[in-house]
This record gives sequence, C-alpha cells and structure tokens, in this order.
Amino acid sequence: MPPRTPLLSLPNARPYAFQFPLSTTALIIIDIQRDFVDPGGFGEVQCGNDEIFSRARAIVPAVKRVLDAFRSFGGHVIHTREGHQPDLADLPASKRLRQISAPNGHHGIGIGDQGPMGRLLVRGEYGHDIIEELTPWPGETVIDKPGKGSFWGTDIHRVLLARGVTHLLFAGVTTECCVTSTLRECNDRGYQCCILDDCTQGFDAQQVTTSLDIVCGQDGLFGFIGSSPDFFDAMNKSQLQATPPATPPLLADDGLPPITELLSRYKKGIISPVDVVNYTFDRIEQYKSIDPAVWIHIEPREKVLAAAEKLAIRYSGKPLPPLFGVPFSVKDTIDVQGIVTTAACPQYAYTPSTHALAVQHVLDAGGIFIGKANLDQLATGLSGCRSPYGIPHSVFSEKHISGGSSSGSVVSVGAKLVSFGLATDTAGSGRVPAAFNGVVGFKPTKGTVSARGLVPACRTLDTITVVAPTIPDARRVWQIIAKHDPADPFSKLPHTLVTWKSDFRGPRLGGFTFAVPPQSSLEVCTPQYQDLFARAVQTLRSCGGRLVGVDYKPFEVAGDLLYEGALLHERMTCIGLEFLQTKLDELHPVIKALFGGALANPPSAYDVFRDQALQIQLTRTAQQTFDTLRGGIDVLVVPTTTQHPTIEQMVADPLKLNSKLGTFTHYANVVDLCGVNVPAGTYVDGEGVRLPFGITMLGGSGYDAKVFDIAGVAEEAFREAVKGG
Amino acid sequence: MPPRTPLLSLPNARPYAFQFPLSTTALIIIDIQRDFVDPGGFGEVQCGNDEIFSRARAIVPAVKRVLDAFRSFGGHVIHTREGHQPDLADLPASKRLRQISAPNGHHGIGIGDQGPMGRLLVRGEYGHDIIEELTPWPGETVIDKPGKGSFWGTDIHRVLLARGVTHLLFAGVTTECCVTSTLRECNDRGYQCCILDDCTQGFDAQQVTTSLDIVCGQDGLFGFIGSSPDFFDAMNKSQLQATPPATPPLLADDGLPPITELLSRYKKGIISPVDVVNYTFDRIEQYKSIDPAVWIHIEPREKVLAAAEKLAIRYSGKPLPPLFGVPFSVKDTIDVQGIVTTAACPQYAYTPSTHALAVQHVLDAGGIFIGKANLDQLATGLSGCRSPYGIPHSVFSEKHISGGSSSGSVVSVGAKLVSFGLATDTAGSGRVPAAFNGVVGFKPTKGTVSARGLVPACRTLDTITVVAPTIPDARRVWQIIAKHDPADPFSKLPHTLVTWKSDFRGPRLGGFTFAVPPQSSLEVCTPQYQDLFARAVQTLRSCGGRLVGVDYKPFEVAGDLLYEGALLHERMTCIGLEFLQTKLDELHPVIKALFGGALANPPSAYDVFRDQALQIQLTRTAQQTFDTLRGGIDVLVVPTTTQHPTIEQMVADPLKLNSKLGTFTHYANVVDLCGVNVPAGTYVDGEGVRLPFGITMLGGSGYDAKVFDIAGVAEEAFREAVKGG
Repeated sequence: MPPRTPLLSLPNARPYAFQFPLSTTALIIIDIQRDFVDPGGFGEVQCGNDEIFSRARAIVPAVKRVLDAFRSFGGHVIHTREGHQPDLADLPASKRLRQISAPNGHHGIGIGDQGPMGRLLVRGEYGHDIIEELTPWPGETVIDKPGKGSFWGTDIHRVLLARGVTHLLFAGVTTECCVTSTLRECNDRGYQCCILDDCTQGFDAQQVTTSLDIVCGQDGLFGFIGSSPDFFDAMNKSQLQATPPATPPLLADDGLPPITELLSRYKKGIISPVDVVNYTFDRIEQYKSIDPAVWIHIEPREKVLAAAEKLAIRYSGKPLPPLFGVPFSVKDTIDVQGIVTTAACPQYAYTPSTHALAVQHVLDAGGIFIGKANLDQLATGLSGCRSPYGIPHSVFSEKHISGGSSSGSVVSVGAKLVSFGLATDTAGSGRVPAAFNGVVGFKPTKGTVSARGLVPACRTLDTITVVAPTIPDARRVWQIIAKHDPADPFSKLPHTLVTWKSDFRGPRLGGFTFAVPPQSSLEVCTPQYQDLFARAVQTLRSCGGRLVGVDYKPFEVAGDLLYEGALLHERMTCIGLEFLQTKLDELHPVIKALFGGALANPPSAYDVFRDQALQIQLTRTAQQTFDTLRGGIDVLVVPTTTQHPTIEQMVADPLKLNSKLGTFTHYANVVDLCGVNVPAGTYVDGEGVRLPFGITMLGGSGYDAKVFDIAGVAEEAFREAVKGG
Repeated sequence: MPPRTPLLSLPNARPYAFQFPLSTTALIIIDIQRDFVDPGGFGEVQCGNDEIFSRARAIVPAVKRVLDAFRSFGGHVIHTREGHQPDLADLPASKRLRQISAPNGHHGIGIGDQGPMGRLLVRGEYGHDIIEELTPWPGETVIDKPGKGSFWGTDIHRVLLARGVTHLLFAGVTTECCVTSTLRECNDRGYQCCILDDCTQGFDAQQVTTSLDIVCGQDGLFGFIGSSPDFFDAMNKSQLQATPPATPPLLADDGLPPITELLSRYKKGIISPVDVVNYTFDRIEQYKSIDPAVWIHIEPREKVLAAAEKLAIRYSGKPLPPLFGVPFSVKDTIDVQGIVTTAACPQYAYTPSTHALAVQHVLDAGGIFIGKANLDQLATGLSGCRSPYGIPHSVFSEKHISGGSSSGSVVSVGAKLVSFGLATDTAGSGRVPAAFNGVVGFKPTKGTVSARGLVPACRTLDTITVVAPTIPDARRVWQIIAKHDPADPFSKLPHTLVTWKSDFRGPRLGGFTFAVPPQSSLEVCTPQYQDLFARAVQTLRSCGGRLVGVDYKPFEVAGDLLYEGALLHERMTCIGLEFLQTKLDELHPVIKALFGGALANPPSAYDVFRDQALQIQLTRTAQQTFDTLRGGIDVLVVPTTTQHPTIEQMVADPLKLNSKLGTFTHYANVVDLCGVNVPAGTYVDGEGVRLPFGITMLGGSGYDAKVFDIAGVAEEAFREAVKGG
C-alpha cells in the first residue's frame, strides 16, 4: 500500500459527492465473464431476452477505460468470477435446481450443463473466464466465488484487509444480482462503496434503476452512485496527474529504490532486470570490504544475469508481475532448490530438491534470487555473533552487532544490497536484527506463510518473515507469500483467520488504540532506550494513536515460558536429537554450550504438558487482549529490544545478554501474535555513534493487515518527526 | 430436529409453487424492533416520511399470526435485531457517518445518538428491542447483527446448520434493506428462501416492489415470494393438522417419552414437572433392584419436587424453555454446585462451588437435575467395570457390560430413568457404552462445549457429551450446551468453526457420502459384529448414502498415538502427579495397574514433541478427509466397538480387552472429529441374549450438525429396517 494520497471526488455522485483516496481504493469488476456477457452462456439463459442481454456487453469499453486508469498508477484491482468446481461440490442444490425447475421458465439448461462455451459457470471452462478485453494482469486479484455475493466461500474480506483497501469502485454485471449483493456485503463490513453507473448493467431495466436507487437512497443506505466520466475528471484534476515527481536517478549510488518505484521504472522501460542485477552485484562486491560476513552463498553473477534476461524476455510487452526483477536474499535456513541449506551449521547441511514454498511464490512473482544470508547457527540467537561464517555488524556501525539470528538478511537489506529478504522469526530473530539495522522486520501470524522448506527450530513457533526497507515494501512481499499451504500441517486454515470492519478514514484520521508495557517492565532497557521509547510513544499519539491500559503480565509469563520453561526443548526434537548428541562438539561454541546445557537438563513429559496448558491459557488471554470488537486494543507497542550492544560486549556475555535482547520478542509466537519492527529514527550513543532505534507493533493472531495499516502510519510519523526534529 | 415432515406448498408463490417441510423450515423475522417501526426510532429518521413510515407497522398482525402458527407446532423461529455494542466498537465509520454527512439529508441524528427510546440502534436500549407483540420466546434464536445482512459478525450460519434448517420464510423490515440483504446471503449458502409479501414492508413503495421482483425474477434468481394467507391454507391442508396423533398414555410404564413429546404434554397442561419427577424417582427406585450400580448420588426426592414446583410456578402461563421439566443425569466427573464430584474416586473427591457451564445451560433451559451417575474411575476405561461404586450392566443383559467410562449415564438413559445425561468422552467413553445400551451417545467437536467444571482427563482431548434415547433429543440438548465459553481456553473461537452449504433436499433425498474402514481393520471385530456392520452399511446405502473410498490408515495411526504413544500421559499432569504418586495404592486395582505402569515408564519430553507433531499432521489429514468442498466425505462410519463382552470376560481381561473395545473410538479426539453412536438394531448372541448394536458416524471438526443431519436419517432407516426385517 503506497502512502495515503489526497482525496479525489466524484462531485455528481448520488446522494452526494463520493470522496476517495486512490491509494486505498480498489476497482472491483464483478463477473464480466463470457458466461454472463457473451452469447451462449449462462447469462443469456438467465436473461431470456436477446435484446436486453446484448446491452450488458455495451458497458465493457467504459469498464476497460477505468481499468486502464487504475493500472496506470498501480491501483488495486479485484476481478470476481461466479462459478463452481468441476464436481459442482460447491453448487447448492437450490441454485442448481430452482430455475430449471420453473414450470414455465426459460431455463432450458442449468449450471454445470454443457453449453457452446463449455459447461455453464464451471471453473476452467472457456465460458467461465473473464472476457479478453478485461483479462486480469499478474498481481491483480481474482476472486472465484460460488455465490452471487462475493463473501461466501472466498477470502475476499482478508484480501481487501491485506491490501488496506477502504473504498471500492464497482463495475460489472448484473446490477440487480451480483453487483449489489457484493456491495451490500462490503457495506456491512465498513467499506465505502460507489457504483459507476455507466459501468454496470443488468437484465431488467427497472431492476437496474431501482437497484441503484436503493444503494444511494435514504441519504446513502448502502453507498454511492457515480459515473466513469466523473471519475476521469477527478483523475485529471488530481495532483497525481498534475505534478509528476521529479525524475530521480535511474539507480542511485545509495542503493535500490523502493519496490514500487523500481517497478515503475521497469514499466517505463528505463531500466532492465539486467541493469538491476549488475547494480546489485556491484554493490554486494563493494560491501564485502565493509562487511564480509553477510552471505553464506552468493549466486554466480552470470547465472543471475541469464535469469534476469530470461525474465525480461518472458514479460516483454506484457504486464509485469508484482515482484518483477526485484532482487532478494534468503536466510540460509530456507530452501532454495539445488543450493545447499546450511543453517550456518556445515554439519547440518543438505541440498534441497525443491524451493521453500515462500521462495517459490516470490520467484513466481518475478523476484530475482541473489544469495543465501548468514545467520546465528541453527537460527539460535538474537546476536548475530554465533555463526561459523563470521559476524556481520550493524549497517550503522562496524562495532555494533547486527542482531540475529537473521543477521545477514537484515544487513543485505539495510545496506540496500537487495530489495528485500526472506528470513525467519521464532523468538525474535526477524525483529531484533531489523531494529539494529533500521529496517522493517515483519513477522506474520504463525501458520499464515507456509513453513515448508524451512529448517525447523520449533515447528509450532516458527514463522518465515519479511525484511524490507519500508512498511509498504514489506506489505507487498507479505501479500505474495501469505498463501495457505494445504501441505503444511502447521498452516492455519483460511476460514479460521479473523476479519474485522474497515474504517474508511484510515488509522491516522480514524484513530487506533495501543498499549505499552508498564514502566517496571521497561526498566530492563538502557535509560537511552527508555527515553527513545517514550518519545516514540509521543509520536504515535500525534498520528492517531490513543494510549490505553492493558494487563501486560500474561505476555511476560509467556516469554518466560519459552526460555525458562519446557517449550523451547521442542527445538531438540526438531533439529534432531541424534544429530545434536553426535555433533555437539562440532557446533559453534556458544550453541554447543546452549544445547549441551539443555540436553543435560531435559524437562519431563509432564513439564511439557503443564507448560503447554499454560500456553493455551495465555494464548486465549492474548486473543481477548486484541479482540477489538470487545474492547480489545489494536496494537501492543514495545521497544523491539533493550539496548544495542557492541560485538565485543556480546561476545563477552553471549547467553545472558542474548536473552535480555529478546525480552520484548520472546512471547509473540508463544501466544500467537504477529508483529513488525518499525524504524523509529536514530540516536547517538555515549560513544558518539549514530544508531537506529526500533519499536515493535504487535497485533493479535491474524491481524497482520491491521498491524500493517497502523505501522504504515507510524512509519510516516517517525519520518516526519525526524524531519521535524 | 423432528423427523422430516411432508412438504407443504404455497401454490400461488412467484415464480412458482414454494414447497417446504415444516420440520426443517425456519421463520425468520427481520428487525421488527421499536427502532424500525415505532415513532422516534432510527427507522423514522431513515424513512423521513411519516405516512410511508407508518405503513411498516401495519404488517405486524400478519407476522404475529405466522409466528403463532410456528410456535404451535414447535417450529424453528429466528429473530434478528440490527444494532451495535454500547461502545459502538462494531459500528463501521461509514455507517455512522455516511447518512448524517449528507449535505441535504434528513438524518439529523445518527446511530448511537440519543433518541426518545434511548440511543439509536444500540444494544440494551429500549428502542433496540423487538416490539412487544413479537417478543421472542425462550428457545427461539435472537441474532444480534451489526450489519444489514445477518451473516457478518454473527453465528447465524452455524445456528441454521445446527438446527438442520433448509428452508426459510421471511418476514420483517425493511424489504429493500435488511430483509433482502439477509435473503441474498441465505440464498448463496443453499437455503430455499421465500418472503411472505404481506409480512414485509419498506420505506419506499417502488423499492419494495422491485426488491420482491428481483428475488423471484428470472425464474427464481434468489428465491420465492409467497403470502401468509397461502401459508395458512397450506397449514390447514397439512397432515400435521388433519391427523392428530393418537393420544398416548400420559406417562407410560416403559419410561419417559421423547423430549419434544414430553414438552408437548407440558404445554397442553396434561402433566406437570412434579408428575414427571415422581415418575422418575419411582422408576429409579424400581431399577435399583435390577441394577444398584447406576448412581453415585441421587438427589433427595423432596428437594427435586420442590425445584419442580418452583419451575412450574415460574413458567406458569408463560412460554416454556426448551428443556422445561426434563429430568437429566450428570456423570460424576462434571460439577454440580454443592454436590461432591467424586470421579468414582473417593480420594479425589471435592465439592464444587459452581455448576459446570454445560450443567448451568441445561438448568437455565429448564432441565431438572436428578443425580450423579457412576463411571469408570477417573474416567479411565471403556468397560464400566472399574468403579468402587459397583459395576453397572447393560440395560439389555445383566451378564453383559454397560461399557464405560460413562457407564451410569448410559444406563440412566437406556433404562429411561431420565430423559438424557451429560457425560464425557476422551477416547470413547461416551460412544462405546452408548452402543452397549442401545442409546445415542453424541461427542461434539472438542472445544465447542465448555469444559469448565469437568474433571480433566486429558484437557486437550476431553469433551462433554450428550447421552439420549434418540438423535433428535441429543440434538436438542446439544444445541443448548454448545455455546462458546470465553473463560475456557480450550474452547474454539466461534469464527474459526467451519460452515457449509445447505442442501434443501436433506440427506435422504440429496444424498450423502460415507466411508468405512477396510476389511482388514474390521477383522478385530467378532464375526457377528462384522456381519452386523455389513448390514448397517447396506441400510445406509438404502437411505441416501453413497459408499466411497478413503485412506483409513491415518486414523489408525492416530489411535495408536493415543494409547501406545506419549499423548495419553497428559492424563497424569491433568489428574495431578502428586495425587497419583501418593494415592496410587488406594485406587481401583485396574486403575492402579494402569497408572502405576504409566508412571513407571514415562515418555520423554522429546517423545511428546515428536508425537504431537505427528498428531498435528494427522489432524490436518483428517480435516482434508472431511473437506466436502474439496472432494471430502460427509461421514466416516465405523462399528462403535468390536464386540460385547460379559462382565466376567471383562474382569478376567481388564486391560487388553478394554483397549480393543476402543479400536474405533480412540482416534476421534486425537484428530479432532465429532461423532455419534447411532443404535442400529439388535441381535441375539450365541447364548441367546438379545443385545444392541451401534455404529458411529464420525464427522470433521465442526461438522456436528452435518453428522446430526445424517445420523437422523440413519436412525430412521435402522428403525424401518427393524420393522421391515
């Protein structure tokens, strides 16, 4: 989601002017499938009158113009298709039978029956697909729905929330059926809806007219009715069009631009993936002299250049997928086909025969894989000082730790060597190092990104995370990888994930609630960190945040449960008891000490059951804390970590200090939260070194999109605070 | 849900005759709240025209007549109310602001603002409630909805599925808004919908007319439009009215009648709760000579008579709650306030200060508590032979085991001493003994009935179950107790539970799929049981069942995981390690042997993590097996147990034989299934004793209502088979 743009207005809309920010407005095109607008499909059967039926197709040019406009600025586009699985398992008997059972009806054939364009309204058939003129582009959402509305049996609500959509412009067929059914559902959930009346049509003139009247009647019962000419007027008047941004350098010396900007340059054809790959490799080469410990494996430049060229050819003259030509790093606990996964533990290494599913999704979206990033051995640690492949340092200071375990990943992004990284986070491994490098580290809700192809640390707690320079970039990547994986038993079933009402004003104007730990809990931080955190809280209050109280104790108990209880011993089972017992002496000395100690003092089975019962209790408490419909908070805000040690300090105190760094991260996966490190400015430490500070915004299970919404506002506010201060 | 009744027809409905079976048809009355039909409420503001507004109220007499008709035969009634929480947390900003922001609108005040009847559309306010004439009766469903539709933010879909509803008659306001929004949502989910056009009204004549036209246009796009006079014609013609059932004896010698029949007699005033209590206690007294081991505690007759009298007075002249005056037993692992909970283990006994929540729900619905039923000690066993309070025997044979652990519960129901029992099922304790006594034992999905106030066996696996003579009776009780409990951390969050499309034809006509274990797995059963099971499968095929293949292996692995793996050791933690260690010698000899053996060979923490990982994998596999939208089966059908041992056989072989009895029950909670024992006729064993046979229908997590739908059809088919054969 780009930053919120100024409001556009359709001044002639009914019942009054419809205002919407392009950045959070989606164009939703309902069911313009061959089956509904071309002869021989279900629509013709349904309509029963060829003259009326043919009018439906007349809207297509107007719809196409609006679609082109949305595509021109990278706006959100949703296409829906009504239809059913080939076995008709999702076709209710009433829908199958009602119309063909009409004694005097004109429904000679029903859904699932053979027609000239294939079986009517069956997925995969020619007639079921969207007409040529409006064929979806890569990255646009297609909702396959078994209903006339779009919410039953689909994930559209989470799709809209994921994208931060607040407003919807409706086009499509038929007005009286699927368009208004979907609009009513959107309206209930808080979306501001407007139908463009020249972009919709139905099979009965009176029904179309009255359907529109109902939407906007009674001072706007369900929403607004506008038109596409008004929309184009508004677009023409908008600042977006009026003041094109100053042309930036194609690829500046200070690293890659944000992903949307990179894509914009690709679209304009002013750079190519080959340019970007060469730029990336040059930068990586240069950075080796600053920090040689970032990578465990770098792909050969020639191989990547060949891949980039292939990509460019494949999409030449075609719409680009959402991560086209975007270079990324992969933490070396995540599988990339044919490349050794070491987990920073050569004794553990293996060569995977398939990509981790998250990597596959990124590659499918056009991403360019650059290399495998360094990490704390076996993803155990928050320091970045526990790898046989060297100790990366913060991009801000060669004396200070990068943090871990995703050390190389955050440096690869913080140093702008790549556009983003895929990393992991079990107890803070994606958030703590992000804070130490001034980048975004987003840890999704457990089980929402497939963990297939990830070296397990604790399988019930592990998450694949996104490291990116900004919140919008992290959100973009998250949308690509957060797909349900039926083959990952730890993945959550889509229907179990939470949804919530949209606030069309956004968090800055609509407000949000946040809580913070009590002062007693913050005292583990250095005084400077306490001060920085207090200032961050003030900034949040200035951008829509309302500070509220919360019982923080359960989160602390959950943190202790991980590191002082039995839960972390799942790690032994996941890594492999036999491996640890036989290879212990070969491990990194700190890891050896840790695992050796754990193996010598295993908990009992009863300890495990007892601690898990408490975990379940604490998880329920956390769900209630974030249950916004019942007085819960939107986000819990904590300092991501407690202080920024030097490498020297860390090496001198490898265990206790490590544990301290995770004070505010340990519990997130234990009680099933999502969270993101948001860079919150920089400070100068006692030695005169400028270092980054980060806060973490934690949300309830499944509230990832809400956390992104608020973190996006916070990120802007922190940037403004830096400029202002 | 009563057995499916003959179809009624509204012959003048549009687009053609609407046919519906009363037993699965619900009357849904939309939003006839003071706020919408009385002056000074939100409706008046919304409508803006007093003359038009006043028409909405004119439908009330017709709606009342239809409501009275539904109440007369105990039909399903759903009321909806649109409104918001007092803190407006569920009120979208768009809904709050859109209409009051209209520059020339007439919305002077908005939702949440103070009006003459309280804050507009706010729950708990006078104006928010349903008008006097239509006040909901106990047992009728009230859906509080934040939307205009009824599906967003509510559990209406699961409410309809729970009741087996397939058809809906719509009444209420306003036609153009909440009535048709809800109808469209119901239509998408497969419900057959019909609006009674004289029972609905809106705020704009054209919009009302066209809204109805849209519903029934195009040969029935969304459903049907009928009228209440037609409805009454149909009622008058129906057999329900034409042939009243022959008058049965008030309380026959052979035990209590089904719950609906009992309630019908209460409603007619021909019996009183006092009569039923006396009858119950007389029967209990008589049965003591047949089997003295049924109860651990029986309430004093005088105390219960006093309670019955109080209940009668409380509801004198008022509508009766759904379990009014229905006597029930409680397994003695479930708390009843002030009465010792022993778990059949005097050493464990304690006196609870509150009712288990399930007991509370039953009492709130008018149930009459009779006593605490015997069980295998600490709910450990499937035999019924492990209690210091004696060994109950099957109601069919004094030589044969009752089964356990819910031994006393099933006998109390099988001997018709009470109308139903609340029992438990961790590894089969509610299903196996049900089979041995020819009664229904329903085990809900884990976490859908509160386990607060239940002595934990394995907290992650325990469920409270219903023992009842018939499927409709079990379903009725289940609907009362299956309510989310925020204070039970093991309870599933309502939004995470599955929903599915309705088939208006019901399972017998619409069909259902079922799978059975392979022959190799069935060979653990005696030849006679194998034969009985094969015949049961034939019966299922004759009543709509389609036998399909399934990979049964994962279920067997899951069963082994419980008894041969680490999972069952959760029981030690739940019962209390210290208790077991100090009191071991005082336990029942068989229980002592079991727990002594387990304590001597505890699994390691790593075993637990490993087995749990497998459990998660198997649970996902099971979810896929029952995912009907993706080719999954409706139910898995198994023989409930393998044979019916005599008490002598059981005592001689207390461990191995017990384990064998659970072959087809052990895995259900491990992989999160629901299931029910359905009596499937009787047989004569080698010794000439007539004994009952039972099958279990297992469904996927959350598919309880689907299992009830199919089990209801199966129960009828088995009865017909008995009559026929």
